[in-house]
Amino acid sequence: MKVEWQHTDKNAPIGVFDSGVGGLTVVREIMRQIPNEKIIYFGDTARVPYGSKSKETVTRFSKQIVRFLNTFQVKTIVVACNTASAYALAELERESDIPIIGVVKPGARVASEVTHNGRIGVIATEATIGSKIYNQYLTLLNKDVTIYGKACPLFVPLVEEGLWVDPVTDEIAKRYLTELIDLDIDTLILGCTHYPLIRSTLGRIMGEKVTLVNPAYETARELKELLTRMDLLGDHAPVLGENQYQFYVSDMAEKFKSFANSIIKYGILSAKTIHIEEYYTDER
Amino acid sequence: MKVEWQHTDKNAPIGVFDSGVGGLTVVREIMRQIPNEKIIYFGDTARVPYGSKSKETVTRFSKQIVRFLNTFQVKTIVVACNTASAYALAELERESDIPIIGVVKPGARVASEVTHNGRIGVIATEATIGSKIYNQYLTLLNKDVTIYGKACPLFVPLVEEGLWVDPVTDEIAKRYLTELIDLDIDTLILGCTHYPLIRSTLGRIMGEKVTLVNPAYETARELKELLTRMDLLGDHAPVLGENQYQFYVSDMAEKFKSFANSIIKYGILSAKTIHIEEYYTDER
Repeated sequence: MKVEWQHTDKNAPIGVFDSGVGGLTVVREIMRQIPNEKIIYFGDTARVPYGSKSKETVTRFSKQIVRFLNTFQVKTIVVACNTASAYALAELERESDIPIIGVVKPGARVASEVTHNGRIGVIATEATIGSKIYNQYLTLLNKDVTIYGKACPLFVPLVEEGLWVDPVTDEIAKRYLTELIDLDIDTLILGCTHYPLIRSTLGRIMGEKVTLVNPAYETARELKELLTRMDLLGDHAPVLGENQYQFYVSDMAEKFKSFANSIIKYGILSAKTIHIEEYYTDER
Repeated sequence: MKVEWQHTDKNAPIGVFDSGVGGLTVVREIMRQIPNEKIIYFGDTARVPYGSKSKETVTRFSKQIVRFLNTFQVKTIVVACNTASAYALAELERESDIPIIGVVKPGARVASEVTHNGRIGVIATEATIGSKIYNQYLTLLNKDVTIYGKACPLFVPLVEEGLWVDPVTDEIAKRYLTELIDLDIDTLILGCTHYPLIRSTLGRIMGEKVTLVNPAYETARELKELLTRMDLLGDHAPVLGENQYQFYVSDMAEKFKSFANSIIKYGILSAKTIHIEEYYTDER
């Protein structure tokens, strides 16, 4: 049931979610670009990863999370996960009264702008590649581009194991990327929010002629534009001691916290565990 | 609420569950050793993996699955997942009227029997190693053994990617196993149901002086003994066309089916998807 309702509180929080920790690379950009905003982050660490799961399941999980975030009266939601953006965004938007933005469209837009030869590679999870969502957006933006998608299922576990710079990550990256190099792409979209963490490895293997596109930066920019346009940009800095950034997870809050601290350099974060299945309803 | 009730139907099915596909290595052994049994298998493919998640979450998920399996009036349940056996078995047993067996105890028993020098290695998920469950069982069985646990979090994704025999799997295995080799173990428990699938790699690296223990075989043997003792061993071969083995998953039934067919050589299996969250209750 969609209720017509317009958010008017500029200083309401922004909701951000991901299957786990990857979305923190997007949160980091939001913090940098619009530092006055409050953020409620949810990482679905009990059910991570999403990238090997089905559209139906990822959509069901995403809806539960949107229900959870809405309990905070968020003014907008950022789907900081490529798989959830690919599979669930359209349906989430249809059911929502507040704007919801994903990471795919911003990434596609910048890639279509920076390519010279019109040959764009996308690396992402099996789910995102299988959805062909980047192809859809890119073809809408520019009919003359050719898109080459490559699923890289081992990157997420390698990143989560901390092997950001490691011969094994090098070897796996070479296997995944060789065919994209051979296809003479000049632009590579990092189509999974974990991948910016191995950007140096990816950049070295692709060579300096290939531009790497990290959708996190563009997503934060699009969010800022959206909030400005709707007159919903936060207009006062949070007061000292106020909990500007709140992190929730469905499991393993301590582990999340320590990983988060390695990505976001804003000191100790607190993270709370909630039972996300409780936001399950029959309407799904 | 525990109801006093004794199963009397010898030909009722056996329930088996795992976080995903790993438990199929146990099912394969059950099929071999007691071919007259009917099996209901559940793989929690929507929430896989369990090995990086908490005791509380794995226990909650396991209880939901037991509720689902009980709808088939199973005569016994096999927890074919080391992480769920480590974290949830004690609580599942407390609440159940039917016998529930895990994979940890059978693996520990055989390891304590085959070791000569009393130095036993255990490789498993972070969760299983962190629980120290193998240490508890092994020390109970034999006070003179020393146990060395090593979490191997990348093995599951490597197995699921099909890199069963691959230089990358070799390299990762060497990193994980070197310290166990240096510790002069003579017995290595494969403490995760995925690991028998890379047994040849593990065996080559450990060398022929180290005995690899696959708890799947022992678990099936223990199951057979239990059913015999309780006079619940299936006593007639399923009739032609009867669906002796039923597979359920929480997601990606087709992918599961193709993986299952690479492990179990019994021809085409069918697999159905169910929503496991529906078995969530407040009592958790």
